[in-house]
Amino acid sequence: MKNAIVLLSGGLDSATVMAVAKQQGYHCYALSVDYGQRHSAELVAAQCVAQALGAIEQRVVNVDLTVFGGSALTDDRIAVPEQPTTGIPLTYVPARNTIMLSLALAWAEVLQGQDIFIGVNAVDFSGYPDCRPDYILAFETMANLATKAAIEGDRITVHAPLLHLPKADIIKLGIELGVNYEMTVSCYQASFDGRACGVCDSCRLRHAGFKSAGVDDPTRYRSA
Amino acid sequence: MKNAIVLLSGGLDSATVMAVAKQQGYHCYALSVDYGQRHSAELVAAQCVAQALGAIEQRVVNVDLTVFGGSALTDDRIAVPEQPTTGIPLTYVPARNTIMLSLALAWAEVLQGQDIFIGVNAVDFSGYPDCRPDYILAFETMANLATKAAIEGDRITVHAPLLHLPKADIIKLGIELGVNYEMTVSCYQASFDGRACGVCDSCRLRHAGFKSAGVDDPTRYRSA
Repeated sequence: MKNAIVLLSGGLDSATVMAVAKQQGYHCYALSVDYGQRHSAELVAAQCVAQALGAIEQRVVNVDLTVFGGSALTDDRIAVPEQPTTGIPLTYVPARNTIMLSLALAWAEVLQGQDIFIGVNAVDFSGYPDCRPDYILAFETMANLATKAAIEGDRITVHAPLLHLPKADIIKLGIELGVNYEMTVSCYQASFDGRACGVCDSCRLRHAGFKSAGVDDPTRYRSA
Repeated sequence: MKNAIVLLSGGLDSATVMAVAKQQGYHCYALSVDYGQRHSAELVAAQCVAQALGAIEQRVVNVDLTVFGGSALTDDRIAVPEQPTTGIPLTYVPARNTIMLSLALAWAEVLQGQDIFIGVNAVDFSGYPDCRPDYILAFETMANLATKAAIEGDRITVHAPLLHLPKADIIKLGIELGVNYEMTVSCYQASFDGRACGVCDSCRLRHAGFKSAGVDDPTRYRSA
């Protein structure tokens, strides 16, 4: 059994990734990041998911990205779009995945783990640059020059098992692996108790995924 | 005038780098990281250096790496070595430069800056993997896939102007550019008021640098 660091936001994708890592036989160490996100309810969800899926341990790192702002998720003055937009949306958080993967790399090295799992997806996604296959590969290459472990010959692998899956397939895979999606929070402006708005980009992609998978959407919406 | 993010730890190298960036005509935005380092006095030094060298602004991001530990700088139970050691020393902080560069990348993107400066050095250094030229290049490659700016054609450059300089040359360069090294704190176990131990790896490299440069060592040592 090898140790894996799983970046667990508390959303649908990362919960599925954790189930995949577990199914592949890894000891899962769940890493969540409190970056001052508007939808902090996802951190509560992450805790529940980590427990439900049997993480060996979950840790939460605080890194306050509201210091920089520049995104609807880290600056209260920028509203979350409630209609489809063109280009990279305002919910893009500058360098977020790079920061999170870097933190995962730190923990991996301390744990002597060589495997990092992340739930990025480049099919039903918002067009974020740091969700693309080339980016993930470039991070992995960099990681293998960055660490003591790498110098000593232990190759770091960044696993992104959902990269090329449509949302519906992710959902089907997760259900097969026992993920309870009711627990997860994807909404960019979820209420404190994790209820979803139903109209942001993330809610739209999620709902369409359940519909396309032919699965009842278990999301707890505000209006429900 | 272009905007540059300068990673400013408060030590000798990063102070020199900020002077170099300024001399090259950049508007300097100083970024310091409070990662729970044992030598938190360097953060006070960073503030003084940022002011002295005319940073447009300085920001401090908190990211608590004591959550992971694994280094003499982030785990109180691991002592800072006071004798030369072989291999990568215990003061190596897993993924530290990757985390710091990622934070700099976030701020660069928000500021629409394309230039990041870091004071890594691969000559008189402690053998840290994340101070090597190949690593810096790999980070830059990754950064140019990670961001919205990169997608829109703005190339990010990671400048490491001290990479190939011996410590004595760094000191001579800094003095020429008006850096007051008395302000800087390099010691891994500096006291709260910034006084240096004189025996850790960082103190040894620094002192040897002043000696080799033929410059009186302005460091405030504990015993002085």
